[in-house]
Amino acid sequence: MSERSPLSRRALLGAAGAGAVAASVAGGYAVGATRDEPVRPDPEAVPVAFEGRHQAGILTPAQDRLHFVVLDVTTESRDELVGLLKEWTQAARKLTQGNEVGVYGAVAGAPEAPPEDTGEALGLPASGLTLTIGFGPSLFERDGRARFGLGDARPADLVDLPLFSGDRLEPSLTGGDVAIQACANDPQVAVHAIRNLVRIAFGRASVRYSQLGFGRTSSTSASQATARNLFGFKDGTANVKSEDRDVDDVVWVQQGDGPDWMVGGSYLVARRIDMRIETWDREPLAGQEAIIGRAKGSGGPLSGGDEHATIDLGKRGSDGQPLIPVTSHVAKAHPDNNGGARILRRGYNFVNGTDGLGQLAAGLFFISYQRSPEQFVRIQRNLAGPTNDALNEYLVHRSSGLFACPPGVGPRGFWGETLLG
Amino acid sequence: MSERSPLSRRALLGAAGAGAVAASVAGGYAVGATRDEPVRPDPEAVPVAFEGRHQAGILTPAQDRLHFVVLDVTTESRDELVGLLKEWTQAARKLTQGNEVGVYGAVAGAPEAPPEDTGEALGLPASGLTLTIGFGPSLFERDGRARFGLGDARPADLVDLPLFSGDRLEPSLTGGDVAIQACANDPQVAVHAIRNLVRIAFGRASVRYSQLGFGRTSSTSASQATARNLFGFKDGTANVKSEDRDVDDVVWVQQGDGPDWMVGGSYLVARRIDMRIETWDREPLAGQEAIIGRAKGSGGPLSGGDEHATIDLGKRGSDGQPLIPVTSHVAKAHPDNNGGARILRRGYNFVNGTDGLGQLAAGLFFISYQRSPEQFVRIQRNLAGPTNDALNEYLVHRSSGLFACPPGVGPRGFWGETLLG
Repeated sequence: MSERSPLSRRALLGAAGAGAVAASVAGGYAVGATRDEPVRPDPEAVPVAFEGRHQAGILTPAQDRLHFVVLDVTTESRDELVGLLKEWTQAARKLTQGNEVGVYGAVAGAPEAPPEDTGEALGLPASGLTLTIGFGPSLFERDGRARFGLGDARPADLVDLPLFSGDRLEPSLTGGDVAIQACANDPQVAVHAIRNLVRIAFGRASVRYSQLGFGRTSSTSASQATARNLFGFKDGTANVKSEDRDVDDVVWVQQGDGPDWMVGGSYLVARRIDMRIETWDREPLAGQEAIIGRAKGSGGPLSGGDEHATIDLGKRGSDGQPLIPVTSHVAKAHPDNNGGARILRRGYNFVNGTDGLGQLAAGLFFISYQRSPEQFVRIQRNLAGPTNDALNEYLVHRSSGLFACPPGVGPRGFWGETLLG
Repeated sequence: MSERSPLSRRALLGAAGAGAVAASVAGGYAVGATRDEPVRPDPEAVPVAFEGRHQAGILTPAQDRLHFVVLDVTTESRDELVGLLKEWTQAARKLTQGNEVGVYGAVAGAPEAPPEDTGEALGLPASGLTLTIGFGPSLFERDGRARFGLGDARPADLVDLPLFSGDRLEPSLTGGDVAIQACANDPQVAVHAIRNLVRIAFGRASVRYSQLGFGRTSSTSASQATARNLFGFKDGTANVKSEDRDVDDVVWVQQGDGPDWMVGGSYLVARRIDMRIETWDREPLAGQEAIIGRAKGSGGPLSGGDEHATIDLGKRGSDGQPLIPVTSHVAKAHPDNNGGARILRRGYNFVNGTDGLGQLAAGLFFISYQRSPEQFVRIQRNLAGPTNDALNEYLVHRSSGLFACPPGVGPRGFWGETLLG
C-alpha cells in the first residue's frame, strides 16, 4: 500500500511558524512529500506557547471557537491519575504547537496498535489552539471521602457553587472532576484536541458533557473588537482585559490566598445559559436596550457616549430617572454594585439544535476566570432572581461548574504538578 | 439615549464588496459613524450572488460552516405559505449580501414593534453565506391528503427515502416540510441567517430540527483542498466537482425529468450519520485503510498513487487479492459498482455534546445533491447493510430527509415561484 509513511501536520504544511521545526520530525518518522495545501489559512500562524507561569487560554486573546469538555475520573488510583495528567500534558504540548499527539499512522514495531492520533487535523495549522485544565471539588473528595489522597489539598473555596435563584440545573451538566477548555480559530482543531484527550483517558476518565461554541462573546484583549451575543448586543465591552493594570489581581491566585499549589492559577466558572431568544426577539428595541443598559448598535452605555465610554450609573434623564435603569444588566453587574468585584469573562455563543418546541436551542456558554470564586458568586447573587437583573426573564441557567485551574507548566512539568507532583 | 440610529452591516463595514452600496442604505435610514472594525476578516469578501438560474449553495465551493434547519409548515393556507416564501426570499437576498433582514433598531413609525433583525451579525461581513431551500414530500401531501393545492405538483420521485438496512432513524429528525441550508465561513453568520428566517416564520412554520456543522468534508470545486472527516480520512476526493464536464447531468433536473417547476433544481438528501469514533480509534491503521480503501495520510487509493490518482478496483496485490478490498467504502461507493451513479456530496462534521455513555457524540451530517433521488438510493442500497460496506460497523444513520430544491430565482422572483407563483 502506498504513501503510508506517517507525516506530521507541520511537515504537511511545510515549515509554518517559528519553533515548529524540531517538533515536525518528532518520533523520527520519515516525512513524505504530498500535494497538500493547507485546507484553511490560519489567521494566527504562530502557535500559542503552551508553557509559562500561567496556563494559556485564560489571558490569551479569546479565539473564535470553543470545545469544552468535563470529565469524570473513573479510576481511584493516584498513580493512574498522575499518569493520565502526564500523558495529557505531553499531548497538549504537541497539539497546541500544531502537531499530532503521536503518529497518526502505523506505530513502529507495533503495526497492530491503533494510531496514536486520530488524524482529522492533518493539514491544519495550530489555529491558535490553547488547552486549559481545571479540577472540580469532586476530584478532591466525593460523598465526604477524600480521593487520591487530596483531601487536605482542596482549597476552602473549591466547593460546588451555591444554587442561585432561578437556576434550573441539569445534574448531568453540572459538577464534574476535570474540565478542559479547548479554544482555537478552527473548530476542527479544537474538536481534534478534545477528542484525542478523551481517547487518551479511556479507562481512566469518561466524558460527563461537552459543549461546542462559536463567536466568542468576550474580548480578553484591548486589541480585539467586541463580538455580539445571540441577543444581538455587544458583549464584554467592560470585560477585564489582559492589558488592564489590575488584571493579575482579578485573575491569578496570589501567595497566601490558599494552598500554595494554586499560586499562579485561577478559578474557572462554566455555566450553560439558555436564552429565550424567541421571547427576546419580540421585545421592542427600547425595551431590549433598557434591559441591557446599552445601545444595541454602538454598544455605548445609555448614559451616553460610544461603546467604550465610561458607564455613568448616576446620570439621570429629563424625567429624573437614571438613564441606565437600576435593573439593567449593566447596572446589576457593575463593580460599583458588587463591592468592586470583577471577573474575566470568556464565553461563547452556542446553538444546540432544537428545543423540541419549534424553536432553536440557543444560548451563551458562560466561562469566567477569577482569583477567587467569591468574585463570581458575589456578582451572580446580585444578578440572580426574578426581581433583580431584568435580563433574567430571558435566561435559564442549565449547568454549573467550578474548577481550580493550576498554574502553568514548565518545560518538563505536567498539568497539576504542583498538586500531585 | 445615544447612538440609536439604525445601521446596516455594510455601513458598519464601509463599502465592502461590489453591489453592496445600494443595499447599505436600504430603507432610507441614517447611517451613523462608529469606531467599529470588522470582528473577523472575511476570506471571501465578495458576497455570493443570491440570484441565478440555480440556487447558490449547491455548486458554490463548499464553505466551512453549516447551519441546517428543517421546518414544519403549521399553516394550511396557501396564501400564507406563499407570503412566507416571499418574505424568506426577501430576507435571504439581504442576508447573503451581508445586510440585515431589515433594521435591527426601532422601526420608523412603529417604535413599539420589535426590531426586524436580531442584530448578532452586525459588524460581520457576508462571509460567503448561501441559503438554499428544499421542499419535502409532506409539503405536498400528508396522510394521503393534498396540501396547499400541491397534490398534482409533487414529482413522482419525491417520496420518503426507503428504510435502508441498518437505519436507526429518529422520527423527530426525519422528514419535514421545508429544509434550509445555510453555509458560511463564519458560524455566527450562518446561525444569524437561520435564526432570522425561523423568526420570520413564527406562526406559519416551526423548527423540526437544526444541526450545526464544521469542517466541510466534501470539496465541491477542484480549487479546494480536501478536508478530513472525523475518522481522520480525507473525504470527498472523488466527489463531483463544479468543474466536471458532466456536473449538470449529475446535479440539475433537466426538462422532461418530471414537473417543469423543478427544471434547474436539484434533489437534496440530508442524513445525520453518527460515528462510533471510540471503536474506530481502536482499529489499527491497516484496518482503517482497508475499510476506507485509501491511505490515511495522502488520501491516495490503495491501488496506488497520490490522492487524485485513478481508483483501480481490479488491481491485485502479490496475494492475488484486490488492493482495494471489495468491501471497502471506496469500492462500494464507486460508480462502476453502482451503474454509473454519482452524487454531489456537501456534508459537514459535527459534535453534538455527549452520547451519555462517556464519549463524544460525533459524526457526519451528510448532504448530497442529485438530479434524481434514485442516484442516492442506488448508492446507499449498495452501501447499506452489515454484510456490505465495511464502514457500516462504525456508522449509525439517525436522520433522513429528501427535499426538492427548486431552481434559482430572478431579480423579482421568490423561492418556489415555479411551484407556487
